[in-house]
Amino acid sequence: MNNVNQYIEENKERFLEELFSLLRIPSISSDSTHKNDMIKCAERWKELLIEAGADTCEIMPTDGNPVVYAEKKISEDLPTILIYGHYDVMPTDPNELWETAAFEPVIKDGKIWGRGADDDKGQSFMHAKAFEFMVRKGCLPCNVKFMLEGEEEIGSESLYGFCEENKSRLKADVILVSDTSMLAADMPSITTGLRGLGYVEVKVRSANRDLHSGLYGGAVANPINVLCQMIARLTDADNRITIPDFYKEVLVISDEERALMAQAPFSAENYKKELKINDLHGEKGYSTPERTGIRPSLDVCGIWGGYQGEGAKTVIPSEASAKISFRLVPNQDFNVITDRFYAYFKSLAPSSVTVEVKPLHGGYAYVCPIDLPAYKAAEKAYMETYGKRPVPVRSGGSIPIIAGFDRILGIKSVLMGFGLGSDAIHSPNENYPLEQFFNGIKTIPYFYKEFAAANKK
Amino acid sequence: MNNVNQYIEENKERFLEELFSLLRIPSISSDSTHKNDMIKCAERWKELLIEAGADTCEIMPTDGNPVVYAEKKISEDLPTILIYGHYDVMPTDPNELWETAAFEPVIKDGKIWGRGADDDKGQSFMHAKAFEFMVRKGCLPCNVKFMLEGEEEIGSESLYGFCEENKSRLKADVILVSDTSMLAADMPSITTGLRGLGYVEVKVRSANRDLHSGLYGGAVANPINVLCQMIARLTDADNRITIPDFYKEVLVISDEERALMAQAPFSAENYKKELKINDLHGEKGYSTPERTGIRPSLDVCGIWGGYQGEGAKTVIPSEASAKISFRLVPNQDFNVITDRFYAYFKSLAPSSVTVEVKPLHGGYAYVCPIDLPAYKAAEKAYMETYGKRPVPVRSGGSIPIIAGFDRILGIKSVLMGFGLGSDAIHSPNENYPLEQFFNGIKTIPYFYKEFAAANKK
Repeated sequence: MNNVNQYIEENKERFLEELFSLLRIPSISSDSTHKNDMIKCAERWKELLIEAGADTCEIMPTDGNPVVYAEKKISEDLPTILIYGHYDVMPTDPNELWETAAFEPVIKDGKIWGRGADDDKGQSFMHAKAFEFMVRKGCLPCNVKFMLEGEEEIGSESLYGFCEENKSRLKADVILVSDTSMLAADMPSITTGLRGLGYVEVKVRSANRDLHSGLYGGAVANPINVLCQMIARLTDADNRITIPDFYKEVLVISDEERALMAQAPFSAENYKKELKINDLHGEKGYSTPERTGIRPSLDVCGIWGGYQGEGAKTVIPSEASAKISFRLVPNQDFNVITDRFYAYFKSLAPSSVTVEVKPLHGGYAYVCPIDLPAYKAAEKAYMETYGKRPVPVRSGGSIPIIAGFDRILGIKSVLMGFGLGSDAIHSPNENYPLEQFFNGIKTIPYFYKEFAAANKK
Repeated sequence: MNNVNQYIEENKERFLEELFSLLRIPSISSDSTHKNDMIKCAERWKELLIEAGADTCEIMPTDGNPVVYAEKKISEDLPTILIYGHYDVMPTDPNELWETAAFEPVIKDGKIWGRGADDDKGQSFMHAKAFEFMVRKGCLPCNVKFMLEGEEEIGSESLYGFCEENKSRLKADVILVSDTSMLAADMPSITTGLRGLGYVEVKVRSANRDLHSGLYGGAVANPINVLCQMIARLTDADNRITIPDFYKEVLVISDEERALMAQAPFSAENYKKELKINDLHGEKGYSTPERTGIRPSLDVCGIWGGYQGEGAKTVIPSEASAKISFRLVPNQDFNVITDRFYAYFKSLAPSSVTVEVKPLHGGYAYVCPIDLPAYKAAEKAYMETYGKRPVPVRSGGSIPIIAGFDRILGIKSVLMGFGLGSDAIHSPNENYPLEQFFNGIKTIPYFYKEFAAANKK
């Protein structure tokens, strides 16, 4: 394992060129006009995994975008690691805020810039290169499977069925995932909790056409005003969510565990400075890390209606829409929450409008026990690279399929993320520091080594 | 005057061809990419007014779009009528709802279809053709001035200065305007009141970039949620506007006058059926005609922020915006109201966000006394065409410059509109019935005759 640094040094230009070939493909899963780019990206991954040393690699069809699946089997006697990642990326808007083109990756200021640089092309590609190193140097200590999907950013809908149908093929001792962040470049951490997710699109309709706001203003329900009033009533003055029974199943964290979590370093000043905000904002009675780690949240991710162009148009639009997401914590079922939202949201509508609610996707929350042997192996691997023990962190983000793996395949996942809070994933100017990219490639083989040692059959 | 019907019959194909040449020019004043179309439209109007019989016609520059100004002077001893209209039109979005192209006018089902067919190219062109008839038949009984502006839909900003600078040139005994509607095709009415208008654009900002709604959701102010909460607080459960002192100067209408107004025919059932709405919606304690006629209103004309594309993007946007309009009644000053809105809106913002308010335009309300000789002349003119006395109506709409004419030029306006509620002005599928168009051309010369008789010098 000791010559991994040298291997990276000798091959880093090629590593980046290969990664760039993935980043250049605009594999935006939420936009159906990019269907062909999904296929192109899957095919490029297949080439790269074969080159890296996989025995076999297939592009396996699903109901949606295909799964790239590869294997390298050494021996029945060795444990098996299943690497999970995704080759789809988020949309790029608002496009005018990108300083470099989203799909023309560049190296600048020691970072890789472009959509997917971190999430998740950059992070999952570290696994391909760590794997390549172990294969070429003859030190691969485990069997390896790769499963890369193309729908993570839209809810992994097809992957649930894919797992159901391929249970035996996907058999493994652990699932290893790099799709999360560390607390800081010098503060390694492992994500042990992920929030669940509910996502709906709502529409409020009033008259059958746009109306002149002078002739009708004051006498006809304005769907924008009404939608705003309905959204406003989803939370109260303490920023608690008002949907009846929303918090009913929320896992209550003991005061003891909250005190432990509070030991993780957090600076409100730095947080505010980094985001350029004047003040924090969230549920009364909880700290910022608690608000994202152990409490559910409700965010309007998009809203639109009426005239959005230059200048003034005096109109009452016939409809207004919004996209609303929930982040859920362990024990909250996104289907139940979506149903409760639906009933409550409809009840908020005055009789002068009609309301539509369309669920878009959802997923369960996940918790990784920190006494899991695989977790311990990850801990040791980070210590090799960073010289300090990683902090276990409950992230506010969601990777719904991780809970699905647990439920369907009965395999726990370990989330060895190397992203940073400043990587601007899902935003313009997504980036990934070269240092994190190379540290990831360096750390992963240590996980293999520790995991193999702990799982001798 | 009696042969106006015959003149229309003989020339109607040409009238429509000429009107279409105006309708084909996309003179959208709120969109600066249409700057050249404004000039083209002004030039076409100049040609048409000269052809119709004007002695002179000039395209007069202003700080914004030019004014088309024409004159026909017969004698110092005769009264002068100043025709006011506008050659600019509203934007066309949502474009997908137009059944025919907005700027490719057609005749279908007895109506003219296209942006501007009614508002205001169709209506102002009736004056050109009525004028042409009187000139060619030698029966023009007044001096005539035409003033057509290109900024009515964006607040007539340049026309105020134009009036100040051209006071003596614009001298007239009355201003005649066709830019309003009748109650129904068989129920002539004259608009005697117009609401004033305030229009602002607001923006709420939170973090310096779009954020991942999982990693930050619950811990950072979401500008969409906050904007919705702020908008919701602009009105109360009785649909009254909550801005402090908003109603302070509102002209209180006596119970007696309200009882008189209530005699005008109004069917809530038809109103709901026509707009396909389940219920009325407005300020408690007032009828629908009162809500638009004598009460101010607040409408969000547009809202936008975050992800509006297909599917789900889990993002907390960095900002959200809205366009908000007020319709104001006599005695409310739009500058004062805008200031009060500004102070109140800012006070609603939590410390976690910043707020911008940009006033876009405004105008005063207007009332035309029904004992004005010019009003009486208009009344008689409608009676000639429709065989019944027109009903005086306070419209909910605004033509801010009408109050400006009164203030700057000291001239009252008479609003002889021939539009119908079904003309979909400001909406997709704007239209203007041929019957209204030709009835307008027929009625206008009678106004000239009656007005000349009442104003013998």
